[in-house]
Amino acid sequence: MLTAAQRDHIQVVLVRPRNPLNIGAVARAMANFGFAHLTVVAPYEPHWREARSAIQAESLLQNANRAEHLAAAVADCTLVLGTGTLTHRKPDQRVVPLPALTPELDRALAANGHIALVLGPEKHGLTREDLSLCHALVEIPTDARQPSMNLGQAAAVCLYELATRCGDPSAAGAAAASVPAAPAPAPSSTLDRLGALIEQTMAAAGYSPRAMQPANRHDLRVLLRRLAPTPLDARRMMGLFRRILFRLNRNAGFRS
Amino acid sequence: MLTAAQRDHIQVVLVRPRNPLNIGAVARAMANFGFAHLTVVAPYEPHWREARSAIQAESLLQNANRAEHLAAAVADCTLVLGTGTLTHRKPDQRVVPLPALTPELDRALAANGHIALVLGPEKHGLTREDLSLCHALVEIPTDARQPSMNLGQAAAVCLYELATRCGDPSAAGAAAASVPAAPAPAPSSTLDRLGALIEQTMAAAGYSPRAMQPANRHDLRVLLRRLAPTPLDARRMMGLFRRILFRLNRNAGFRS
Repeated sequence: MLTAAQRDHIQVVLVRPRNPLNIGAVARAMANFGFAHLTVVAPYEPHWREARSAIQAESLLQNANRAEHLAAAVADCTLVLGTGTLTHRKPDQRVVPLPALTPELDRALAANGHIALVLGPEKHGLTREDLSLCHALVEIPTDARQPSMNLGQAAAVCLYELATRCGDPSAAGAAAASVPAAPAPAPSSTLDRLGALIEQTMAAAGYSPRAMQPANRHDLRVLLRRLAPTPLDARRMMGLFRRILFRLNRNAGFRS
Repeated sequence: MLTAAQRDHIQVVLVRPRNPLNIGAVARAMANFGFAHLTVVAPYEPHWREARSAIQAESLLQNANRAEHLAAAVADCTLVLGTGTLTHRKPDQRVVPLPALTPELDRALAANGHIALVLGPEKHGLTREDLSLCHALVEIPTDARQPSMNLGQAAAVCLYELATRCGDPSAAGAAAASVPAAPAPAPSSTLDRLGALIEQTMAAAGYSPRAMQPANRHDLRVLLRRLAPTPLDARRMMGLFRRILFRLNRNAGFRS
């Protein structure tokens, strides 16, 4: 069972939801399982805060954050979990079946991290671009013949699993013990600053054709989240890349 | 993980649902988790089979059974599980938290039983009368400040738990081993025939005032489900009560 303090470290992020009734249904499920922090990214319908389906969750919806981009929504998070099914894709991220999520989440909570559960839009779910901002993809084990869940139902299932099976202090202790003193990873915003600096360096070094830049950016995001550097690691890497960039630009200046 | 054959022994029963969209949402969640058997009891809206929310579950809804009473819907079931929260009531039945349901369900499956998951209407859930037809009440552990779940979301959460955590053959074996060769209980219809016969006997014996009959009927139903007699037990009990009833009626005939 999660404590109130642990629930406070978990936010739900809805990316480009179309139907306000689904946003309200997610808010209701959050209230049912004791979660309070909702962020809505680029919602399609301007009046989503009035969704009538947010029964007994009206204030949760009123107090929800709004962001234009997923990167901003998860900036302070150390564990970003995308959700979806795998029927039509082969993800770049690790895949964790929802029933097996507990140890990972308990480790992140034990390290005092901030966690985001990210749900994609109704029709097609999270894009590859969205997923590049996630540390792992949580898979709800649905039937192969009908894998696509309703947004509010998918949220309810995920939050039920989190609320009832995560946060057990003994399990967290055991999970923490099984990992040799894993330091807390840097938050997403740090990874994005580091990524941007590496991209700049790649460009300055003429690393690859301009047409390759989106693909490189994607691979870089995925890589950094898999490596999960600590804040200190990230600071050191940035120091190095700043130095390299400075040199590259100075040399370029010499030549011109 | 449940096998296809095990899923085939599980049905979902919706009691007096008002909103066809919720019926469709339940059908969708069933398709997501690989369940096919839906029974709708006394639906409010005649056109519920056309619910647009039954995405990729249209045929499931078309093939759903319809019953006028819960007793008829669960007649062949050996384990009838009501669902709800406990905030406003003190149930007569055993209460099983949803995350702890696995051993009970695996035992019922190991005994080749038929199982019903019963969900009540949107506003107030299952009545005390409905619950008297259930062997146990499954409680979804929701927040005390907002316990009431949306019908489609409650169904999704229950079916997720069943689909992912029940049906493990080793767990079923272990569960079966921990119970000393528990024989399969009689189905609900047998319990209801036995109950009716006992009621008749009570009336013939002048057991209690007529005003007490509904309360007695309720207590009797609850008792029989708690005792869980086997088909043979039930047959013997009925033999005894028929004999008693015959004698009571003959004596009454003598006197008049």
